[in-house]
Amino acid sequence: MVEITKEMLEQLLEDKDVRKIIEIFDEYNIVDLAEIVNELSLGSTIDLMRILPSIHGGELFSYLDINLQKGILDALDPQRIKMIMDQLFSDDIVDFLKELPDQIQQKVMDSIEASDKQEIHTLLSYEENTAGAMMSTDFVELAQEDTIEKAMKKIKAQRKIAETVNYCYITDTHGVLVGCISLRDILFAPSNSLIGDVMENDVISVKVNEDQEEVTRTIQKYDFTIVPVVDPSNRLVGVITFDDVIDVIQEEATEDIHKMGGIMPVEDSYLNASPLTMAKSRLVWLLVLMVSYVISSLIITKNNELLTLVPSLITFVPMLMSTAGNAGSQSSAMTIRAITVDDLTMKDFPKVFMKELGVAAICGAILCVVNTLRIVLFVDGMGLDIAITVSLTIFFVVILSKLLGGFLPLFALSIKQDPAAMASPLITTAVDVLSLLVYFTLARVFLGV
Amino acid sequence: MVEITKEMLEQLLEDKDVRKIIEIFDEYNIVDLAEIVNELSLGSTIDLMRILPSIHGGELFSYLDINLQKGILDALDPQRIKMIMDQLFSDDIVDFLKELPDQIQQKVMDSIEASDKQEIHTLLSYEENTAGAMMSTDFVELAQEDTIEKAMKKIKAQRKIAETVNYCYITDTHGVLVGCISLRDILFAPSNSLIGDVMENDVISVKVNEDQEEVTRTIQKYDFTIVPVVDPSNRLVGVITFDDVIDVIQEEATEDIHKMGGIMPVEDSYLNASPLTMAKSRLVWLLVLMVSYVISSLIITKNNELLTLVPSLITFVPMLMSTAGNAGSQSSAMTIRAITVDDLTMKDFPKVFMKELGVAAICGAILCVVNTLRIVLFVDGMGLDIAITVSLTIFFVVILSKLLGGFLPLFALSIKQDPAAMASPLITTAVDVLSLLVYFTLARVFLGV
Repeated sequence: MVEITKEMLEQLLEDKDVRKIIEIFDEYNIVDLAEIVNELSLGSTIDLMRILPSIHGGELFSYLDINLQKGILDALDPQRIKMIMDQLFSDDIVDFLKELPDQIQQKVMDSIEASDKQEIHTLLSYEENTAGAMMSTDFVELAQEDTIEKAMKKIKAQRKIAETVNYCYITDTHGVLVGCISLRDILFAPSNSLIGDVMENDVISVKVNEDQEEVTRTIQKYDFTIVPVVDPSNRLVGVITFDDVIDVIQEEATEDIHKMGGIMPVEDSYLNASPLTMAKSRLVWLLVLMVSYVISSLIITKNNELLTLVPSLITFVPMLMSTAGNAGSQSSAMTIRAITVDDLTMKDFPKVFMKELGVAAICGAILCVVNTLRIVLFVDGMGLDIAITVSLTIFFVVILSKLLGGFLPLFALSIKQDPAAMASPLITTAVDVLSLLVYFTLARVFLGV
Repeated sequence: MVEITKEMLEQLLEDKDVRKIIEIFDEYNIVDLAEIVNELSLGSTIDLMRILPSIHGGELFSYLDINLQKGILDALDPQRIKMIMDQLFSDDIVDFLKELPDQIQQKVMDSIEASDKQEIHTLLSYEENTAGAMMSTDFVELAQEDTIEKAMKKIKAQRKIAETVNYCYITDTHGVLVGCISLRDILFAPSNSLIGDVMENDVISVKVNEDQEEVTRTIQKYDFTIVPVVDPSNRLVGVITFDDVIDVIQEEATEDIHKMGGIMPVEDSYLNASPLTMAKSRLVWLLVLMVSYVISSLIITKNNELLTLVPSLITFVPMLMSTAGNAGSQSSAMTIRAITVDDLTMKDFPKVFMKELGVAAICGAILCVVNTLRIVLFVDGMGLDIAITVSLTIFFVVILSKLLGGFLPLFALSIKQDPAAMASPLITTAVDVLSLLVYFTLARVFLGV
């Protein structure tokens, strides 16, 4: 197959070669075509949207950049907008509707069919990050008394085809979810059997107000491509597909990584976020941590006398603080991620404690030995007493830091705070203070000052 | 529906109530049942596997913990093992085969059908983290000259049903992938039409030696539930389903988070990894960083004279180093994640540079002002010259740290290294040294020492 380029498409639009353009959209994958269309001018894209049959137009529209979408909706007449909207899944409509200026939003809402309008309004009303805000209302609903033949007709009648067609859901007269059946099972059931007899009764669903993280857990646990969503009375209200779940998983990982780096979550992508937005998301932690270092300064000031007597002590402070910080953030990184993927909770604390203690004892002991050797062998004029002070400080500080790094995320979880907030910057600050205290205490003991 | 408990299942096994047990496995979701079975003793599980019809046995087996799987394979006779293996997808067999001791591995291989054995051997030969190592060889393969009726028969003949049945792939006589078709489209095509006339020609596939990250990008980009895998001659050799892709996405995020926390990747889950394994994965960075602090110590020693003249200078060192570290790791966290999700590359460096510069200038200026006020207002006996020295150091150090934090991950990518390795610990160390250099230089200028 010939590769389609931006220039080819532009030429065809200029030549108004409608037949050839439609042929291309029949043949090629829409995601690849959308990538090319996203590089066209707004004018050319509007021309294209006027030419394309609604099925291709709708598909293409859903893959375009939001700015092109806005321009298209602004330019097209209500009749054509309606044709596009009819092709879109309700969750996709809701997604871009939120981004539109009021006036264009109104134009779109006016062009949507009355029955769909109600659905869109309901979908818009769900709280962010819940199943309701993720779900689509496009699904195939069957009744237990449907014959296979009737079920096939219902499936065929589903305008918007996608993954959602591979599973059908069965509801009773009150709309309560009672079963599910795969397209394959419908296909191979005897044509005179009733859906109620061939469906699966044990249908797993999620609640409409459930958090999106719970939804991703359910989809992952059962390896579903699609999961039904029910209201508090167990009535079927929507479906969520795996592709939305993949998006949520990526978002959550991004949020965790940002929080662990000491950044408040930013909605926009890196290249789209303005420097001011990004500065705001980073300033909070920088300020908090800068000011909290008053404590470290105070500790150093308080030990000024000791430092004047043994000036070389100060040269080890950066290394001690940094080792403590690294040891602590290693443990918190592992625990935070384990909470997400292995469902670690506060009840696992004894296990985490023992594990971190074991790891810390091994790491601490080795660092302690290496450091003693390094000082004794390579640093001129440094007494063994100082070497021992520094090395023992490392040993104790690694243990304290690792225990704290393992504990704080679990503690945050248990008081219903985000474990990822208990990450590097906070832990680094805490263990820095600890390491100074341990260091000066040991120094007084071993140096007899 | 009544909830099934561990005790119920144990009682039924004791009573040898085969009929009731099979009824439960007919009715309930296998993932939920597997959760209960995972808590049974090995003996009970083996009894259960002897009772269950092969379809349920195979399904259940694939959801059991590896230790139960080992025990079952050790206890069952080859005939029954064959029945279970016949139900499993080839990629699942390969996954647990790798974990088995040689002797049980041999027993399993002996019980697999000759044709499957060849497939398993081939799958085992693919390099880790490639499409080949992720894929399954269970897919429906059609020919262009198949009628819809014949296609339906081929689909029905597919022993192992799953998502893989919702898409069929069409190959020519040489096995070259030429098209694909959804189950739904087969269902609604006229029964006398040929597959070649109704299939999609533009079929997206991944190469068998492609990296798993590329595979996840393809699945995400096209919103596929399944993607075909081809060899270098474009012959269809397997399929990869979305659930394996979700696992990869989670794994990659875990790896990035661990690397950013200064930990080498660990294969086992947090609770399963031994303290020794974990200590090893953490020691490398701790040692490297501890020893690299020799540079910081040297810088402090070199400036001993300055510190003796103005002893209060040293009290700001922890704050300066930590602010630099935090500023740098914020930037590296954002860039590393943006490389993964927004496909940032070295060619975006000018944008990243300008963005980080803008963010750093805003953050640096605010931190500078706040710090000056804090010192002047709250710290007794500290001259304005020292306040200005410290505050200006913060300003410059924030800018340097953010530029370095933004640049290093991109640089790593451009020399084909893992961007996540350029994370917190490394950047912290680098900017610590920088901040000391800037600090002492500015101090000499402003304090006229």
